[in-house]
Amino acid sequence: MHTIPGKETLTRVRQLITPHIHQTPVMTSATVNRMLGAEVFFKCENLQKAGAFKFRGATHAVLTLGPEEALRGVATHSSGNHAQALALAARQRGIRAHIVMPESAPRIKVEAVKDYGGEITFCLPLLSEREATLKKVMDRTGAVEIHPYNDYRIIAGQATAAAEVYDVVSPDIIMAPVGGGGLLSGTILSTRHFSPHTVVYGAEPLNADDAWQSFQSKQWVPSDNPQTIADGLRTSLGSLTFPIILQGVEDILTTTEEGIVEAMYLIWERMKIVVEPSAAVPLAAMMEHREIFAGKKVALILSGGNADLHRLPWMENRSFSNR
Amino acid sequence: MHTIPGKETLTRVRQLITPHIHQTPVMTSATVNRMLGAEVFFKCENLQKAGAFKFRGATHAVLTLGPEEALRGVATHSSGNHAQALALAARQRGIRAHIVMPESAPRIKVEAVKDYGGEITFCLPLLSEREATLKKVMDRTGAVEIHPYNDYRIIAGQATAAAEVYDVVSPDIIMAPVGGGGLLSGTILSTRHFSPHTVVYGAEPLNADDAWQSFQSKQWVPSDNPQTIADGLRTSLGSLTFPIILQGVEDILTTTEEGIVEAMYLIWERMKIVVEPSAAVPLAAMMEHREIFAGKKVALILSGGNADLHRLPWMENRSFSNR
Repeated sequence: MHTIPGKETLTRVRQLITPHIHQTPVMTSATVNRMLGAEVFFKCENLQKAGAFKFRGATHAVLTLGPEEALRGVATHSSGNHAQALALAARQRGIRAHIVMPESAPRIKVEAVKDYGGEITFCLPLLSEREATLKKVMDRTGAVEIHPYNDYRIIAGQATAAAEVYDVVSPDIIMAPVGGGGLLSGTILSTRHFSPHTVVYGAEPLNADDAWQSFQSKQWVPSDNPQTIADGLRTSLGSLTFPIILQGVEDILTTTEEGIVEAMYLIWERMKIVVEPSAAVPLAAMMEHREIFAGKKVALILSGGNADLHRLPWMENRSFSNR
Repeated sequence: MHTIPGKETLTRVRQLITPHIHQTPVMTSATVNRMLGAEVFFKCENLQKAGAFKFRGATHAVLTLGPEEALRGVATHSSGNHAQALALAARQRGIRAHIVMPESAPRIKVEAVKDYGGEITFCLPLLSEREATLKKVMDRTGAVEIHPYNDYRIIAGQATAAAEVYDVVSPDIIMAPVGGGGLLSGTILSTRHFSPHTVVYGAEPLNADDAWQSFQSKQWVPSDNPQTIADGLRTSLGSLTFPIILQGVEDILTTTEEGIVEAMYLIWERMKIVVEPSAAVPLAAMMEHREIFAGKKVALILSGGNADLHRLPWMENRSFSNR
């Protein structure tokens, strides 16, 4: 897939992957609506297989491999949700997944990749080492690299989350978190073709605001070792995702670390679902930019649920819990 | 409602309350199925309004008040989910709810009742004080007492959870936790009329096994200040619930405290939803009595999600987390 996927492609991709993924629910909360003075619809990708929207793109990439490629298997370097998603997607097709992970990756993530049958190669926790190790693994196995976001197959897969939203609600605004930009650019494409009146916002941590800087300056700004609790949003935009975002997003909204924890807590307490910090960023952005959303129908994509239940952020800082 | 509700009554109750409650999802987990060698369907009453199945019975009781009763409002003593459920059900009808709570009730529960508009009267934390204070409140206000479980209106309301399960799956076994017995007896009635081939089990903590003792001895055995993390299951069976359970349940299965925490953790980690300890008791019972369930289709009712997110049990005892 070498060009930006259009309406027919998006429709075909959705038909292809739908039998293999969860059609996740869209939830609402009367309390949240009252608090924010808006009508909020949460697309629960935390309830997706492997715990995040990443499974959509990974499934699409794996399903569209040719038979000869499939024999060779897939490979990536990731310490996050893409690793788990690719391992599970590969297992569902019955092929091998080689995952390069830094030695410093949390044990819980390593175990999850193993659970899904991924074959792990550890490396030093440096980007150069990850890339070099991945190259070695690919040379040895012939596996096909599946990049976590800078790949139109992945973008088209992530686009299906927003498409499912438009099956059940016609929002004024949709907002997704932005890290590498796979989910946000997919959301933009689905919106353009299936709900063109809906305005798309991106949300990211103030502490990792490379997408905001890139959007403001119209030039790609890399992220520079950002420190944020939203560990899924530390990456830079990709060469394929940035142009789609630049053209299709209304704005990128940033949020404080305190706001992220508060939103994560609110979702747990009021909606009884587990989300990871990155997934709480759009709600946090909404809470910090209320004037944009007042009286509107707003869809937020809860991108994932792979939180470390042994280290919940409000355990470390009680000051966020004001109830 | 003075007799055990039959098929027509249950159908009518469901029609009456359906517009006012959430039709909660039924979730599955491939990991849990693989772990247990069974096909498990989780009825997510943790996602019910006010965070527990209790809202079903409370809504039914409130909706069937006559206009003169409604003017007087409703009253109960409770420090748990019934208090929140009744307060919210009353607010939805626009009537008053008087809730007697022990001074020792967790602040988080008190705040929740206030949030839902309940009018709280505090008392000393003794059953005799709770009953005496409730009587005083009723004398003063004329409010109608709504008992948390020993009331056919409540039982018929709770029965709708299992009825919704049978809309989407036809299980070999259904299991609900048992405290006062409202949910379990309602589940038995719905099963009898809407899925008679399904076998009903109850689940309770070994540390609060009064229902098991009652079932074994065929005589009502009260619970005697039991110490269990499953705080919703400390009450004794009622005079209306016990006969239904005695006749309709296949067995009561008990579970250890460790098993409850392990099941609660598993549900959070793998299904990304928040459940309270009482809600994890059926899964814990399944894990400790696997032979009964092997190869079967099993529906479990996740009764509620009102966990204290500041005091998660695996924070206090890491030995349960073996990953």
